[in-house]
This record gives sequence, C-alpha cells and structure tokens, in this order.
Amino acid sequence: MSKFMSKRHDELDAYVPGEQPQDKKYVKLNTNESPFPPSPFAQRLARQAAGTIELYCDPESGALVRIAAEKFGVAEDEIIFTNGSDEVLDFAFAAFCDDKTPAVFPDITYGFYPVFATRNGVPYREIPLKEDLTVNVEDYFGVKGTVFIANPNAPTGIALPAAEIEKIVKANPDNVVVVDEAYVDFGGESVLPLIKKYDNLLVTETFSKSRSLAGGRLGMGFANKALIADIKKIKYSFNPYNVNSMTAAAGIGALLDEEYFKANVATIIKTRENTVFALEKLGFTTLPSKANFIFAKHAKMSGKCVYSALKDKGVLVRYFDKDRLRDYVRITVGSAEDMRVLAETLADIIGEQK
Amino acid sequence: MSKFMSKRHDELDAYVPGEQPQDKKYVKLNTNESPFPPSPFAQRLARQAAGTIELYCDPESGALVRIAAEKFGVAEDEIIFTNGSDEVLDFAFAAFCDDKTPAVFPDITYGFYPVFATRNGVPYREIPLKEDLTVNVEDYFGVKGTVFIANPNAPTGIALPAAEIEKIVKANPDNVVVVDEAYVDFGGESVLPLIKKYDNLLVTETFSKSRSLAGGRLGMGFANKALIADIKKIKYSFNPYNVNSMTAAAGIGALLDEEYFKANVATIIKTRENTVFALEKLGFTTLPSKANFIFAKHAKMSGKCVYSALKDKGVLVRYFDKDRLRDYVRITVGSAEDMRVLAETLADIIGEQK
Repeated sequence: MSKFMSKRHDELDAYVPGEQPQDKKYVKLNTNESPFPPSPFAQRLARQAAGTIELYCDPESGALVRIAAEKFGVAEDEIIFTNGSDEVLDFAFAAFCDDKTPAVFPDITYGFYPVFATRNGVPYREIPLKEDLTVNVEDYFGVKGTVFIANPNAPTGIALPAAEIEKIVKANPDNVVVVDEAYVDFGGESVLPLIKKYDNLLVTETFSKSRSLAGGRLGMGFANKALIADIKKIKYSFNPYNVNSMTAAAGIGALLDEEYFKANVATIIKTRENTVFALEKLGFTTLPSKANFIFAKHAKMSGKCVYSALKDKGVLVRYFDKDRLRDYVRITVGSAEDMRVLAETLADIIGEQK
Repeated sequence: MSKFMSKRHDELDAYVPGEQPQDKKYVKLNTNESPFPPSPFAQRLARQAAGTIELYCDPESGALVRIAAEKFGVAEDEIIFTNGSDEVLDFAFAAFCDDKTPAVFPDITYGFYPVFATRNGVPYREIPLKEDLTVNVEDYFGVKGTVFIANPNAPTGIALPAAEIEKIVKANPDNVVVVDEAYVDFGGESVLPLIKKYDNLLVTETFSKSRSLAGGRLGMGFANKALIADIKKIKYSFNPYNVNSMTAAAGIGALLDEEYFKANVATIIKTRENTVFALEKLGFTTLPSKANFIFAKHAKMSGKCVYSALKDKGVLVRYFDKDRLRDYVRITVGSAEDMRVLAETLADIIGEQK
C-alpha cells in the first residue's frame, strides 16, 4: 500500500487472480468455465455490435431486458443486468447491508461474499455448514441480517430444494434474502418464480457458466420492482454503462438460442455423472453435485496433493486451503475428452502412489 | 426506495441516463461520442475475441497492458485498465479519500465526481471556478484533500497547460492529484510523463472519445506502481474481470491503429474550428475548447431555449440547469455533415426569433 491509501481498506484482502499458468498447455478444469463456445447466434450478434461501439451502450440494456422479461415471465422492471453476477451481488451488499443489518452467509460458500462485505464497509456473520457440508435452513430463520445463499452452493455443488429456500425467505420478512443461482441450470431448482410472492427475495444468475459468456461479463438480478429500483440507484451512481454493447448483444443471442443452451447443459450433466462414476472407481468420494463441477476427496491423498500431482501432469483443478475443505479438490466438468484425460491421469497418479 | 434499502444511501442522487429519445431520428450531439466507428483493426480483434468468450477474460488485461506500456513509455505496473474511466475514477475516490481526506474539485466539472464521493461515503469540497469559468490553480495548493481536475474541463472544454497542472501536483506532496484527461487528445497537453517525477499523480484516460469505443467501456489509469497497486487492491476485491475480452481486444486494435486515431482527431479539431466560426457568425459566444465539444451561448436565448428549439428540429445537444451554466449549450463535435445541419438549423431558429 502507498502512504496515500485510505486506512479503511487495511482489512481488504488482495484478491489473487485464478491460476492461468503460461508455461505449457493445460487441461483447464479450475474455473468452472463452459467447455462449449458461446451460441453461434450470440457470437453473430456480438460481432455485429462491434461495428458501432463508438456510441454509448444503453444504460438500461433495454433490448436485453425485454427479451429476458418475456423468457423468464417477469416484468421489465423486475430485472437488472450487470457486469457479471459479481456486480449485482456487490450492489446488493451496498444496498441492503449496513452497520445495523449485517450480511449473513455460510462459512463455506462463494469466497467473494466476505470481500464484498469488507469493500462495502458492512459487517458480516458466517454460519457453519453442517458436518456433511449441507446448509441447515433453520439456522437462517430470523437472522436480523441480509442473507446470501448460493444454491447450488460452492465449492460443494450441493443444492437445496426450492421449498427449503422458500422457508428462509419466509422466515426473514424484514430482511432481504439473496439467492445466488450461478450454477442452478445444472440440476438445481430456481426460486425465481417466488419473486412474485415475496418482496424480500433477490435472485441472481450468471451468463458465465451455462451460457458460455464468462469472458463477456454478464449477470442478472430478479426481484420485485422496489428492490430492483434500489439496486439501480447504486448502479447509476457508479457506472451506468457497465454492460457494454457487444456483451448485451451476445446476451440476447444466448437467451434466444434455447436449444443450444439446453443441449449443452444436458451434455454437462451427463459428463458430470460419468465423471463421478469414474472418480469413485478410483477411490474418490464425491459430494452430490448439481453444478458444473465436482467436489471430490481421495482416501489416501490430500486435496493439495491431488492438485499438485495433476498440475505436474498438465491438468489444472482447484483446492482450498481452509478447514474442512483440505481433503477435497474441485474439478470443473469439461468436455468428455477433458474428463477422459482427467480420469487417466488420476489413474496414473494413484498407480504411482502404490 | 424499498424499506430494505440502507439509509446511508439517502443522499445518493438517482442518476438520469443521457437522453436517448426514440420518437424520431436525431442528429445526436449530446453525449460527446465520436462520429467515427472504431478502427477497422479494433473491430476485427473484437470480433475474433467473440468466439472464445466462454473463457474468463484476463483480470490483468495483460496483452493490453504490454502494448500500452510500450506505446506510452511507462512500465507495465504503472497502468490499470477499467470498465470505462468512470471506474478508475470511482476506485480513486475509494482508495485515496476518507473522512480525513476529502475529495476536492471545481464547482463546475464532470458531474460524476460528487456522486462518486457520495457513493464511497467520503466528504468533498467544491472550489468555484473563476468568473470566466477557468480554474485558478493557486486555489488547489495544499488543499489537504485528494484533488480531482478534469483537463480539459467539462462542460467548458477549457484546458490548462501541463505546467499549470504540475504546479498543483507539486503543491500537494502529501495528497493524490487525479488528472482526468478524458478529452486531452483533442488539443490538450497530457501530464502523463510526470508520473515518473511525482508519486502522488494519477492520470486517467478514456477510449470513449478519441478512440471510438464508448459502447465497449474501456478506461485507463497511469501512476507510479504504488498507487496502481492501491487501485488494483480495490478492483480485485470487487470485480477482477471487469474488462471483458472483446473490449480488451478492441482496445489493442485502437492503440495499435495510430494512423486512424490521428486522422480522426485531426478531423474533429478542424470541424470544431469550423463550427466555432459558424456559431460566432450566428451570434454565439464560445469558450476556447480543447475538447470534442463546444460550450456556446447566444446573446438572446437561454441554453434551455436553444436546446428545446434544436430538439424540436431534430438536433440533440445538452444544457445544464445550474448557476453560471444556464446561458450555455454543450454541442458535441460530430461529422462535418452533422455540423452543417446544426448551423443551418440554428440559422433557422434565429431567423424565427426575429
């Protein structure tokens, strides 16, 4: 830090960008990207948009909002688009938390929640997951804070049924409940329809996973119009043009090409199930995943050990140096071929251990 | 505001997006966009990038940083790229201002500065421009706050020489001075080389004006590496992937296509001078502009009156409902044809007044 940096940021942890080693070509299963390129229609619209970016983008992302409203069966003023879902989550910490209303989330979840809280200068409270790494919904009843729940959760991949999430929403009528559904398309149940029923529910989704737009940066939030207006107030005070024209165009293509989306999701789910089977044959235990990744541990090797051995052989996965997570690696579900290489490489590693 | 919104945002002014009327086709001279499309090379690189946005973008924008470092003659760790220059400015308010270090800027300048201050919960102090709407540099000596100076200033278009800006930087050794050079390419003098000499200078630039990428969202900041590291700490805590892959690629093309950039800037400067001449013939007084817009007032009509009459006839400009600015309209320098239409329309309006 320079001598000029405000002391109020002392607690902010410097983020370390995800590992992108350049020394050789890796099979990259560490950042939960899609193995499929964006829909050809999304690509075409983005390319068209590139020709007119001398003009400012629409701060409302109006065309995108109209298509999303129709697709998801909500009103146009019940939607907001942002620069990735990270941004709508950050805006929710800004809008709905303060000294009197802390953020409340599981001790094991998306790693950015504590950072968003710190950045926005708001307190937070972590509630431990159960021994089996599942969420105990009763722990979130009447918490007197703004609840953030990733469903499916990360990095476990475990999902709660929509009816269980609804219990949390119902039990916090005076506080906002944010349900982060970044991975919901891979087998989870969305609570999006419940925004019509509850005025305290914000549902966030991303285009980075199931819709293959991670590098475009597009996220969305759904809630009743009063909550969306609050978030827009934050957004417009900061960077109204946060979603660029090319990405907004790609988003339209990604939403309209439903067939491509469904086929990719089905393939990833099938590949996930095949990979779980292969991993268990190799002595791994896996958590029941509804996401595009698998959280797996081996009886005889630590997570770090599996990670390092795989990296040496050209396969990147993630491990977490944190209590209760050290036994595991998180493996993104890539293409069938990527997963064949993964299984063969793991078989070699286990063979060498003997 | 919903009942859930934190009261700490009460002071935040809801931003009103720039006027984009859909009722008919307008000659659009109200948002300082370039009349030229992005460089063909920039477009080509952006289109190529659209095919692989299933992968996350590089949080460091490494390729862009390497090219910018060479082009501007600075080290790679002296640069940061952001989602428009609005974002690097917002990060600077976050990093370098707090209760003890207010933001300090002119009373007439870029309208987002007070909003960035409010959003970041930091105090600010406005220093009045002189009677002739120029900056009195001595007013900024030893201000015990973080100085934000737009040079050329907006909406006046008036520029200070680099030597005058340097005096402000020199006179505030214990505080950061941010020089916002969004419009510098149209005839201003950049203080970018001074980042080697002063550890308290941050220079921000945008790709939205002279480089025709407004809808792509790309800005940059230059400073010594300690200040850049501070800003990165803020950026990485919030949204490390803020610059998407397509825009980063377009930025590379825009930087490399120097010939296109220089030709466009020269054309805009020439069109500006021709337009000033035409406006003065019509009875307007203009401020000496070094930007891609002209701040002009007519002896017999208020700014609002000129704005409304132009809008009725299909030409959009901006006026500001603020003391000392009410006489003026701000006119973006568009294509020569746009400016011909503007001058003819104004001649009609003035004729009708008689």
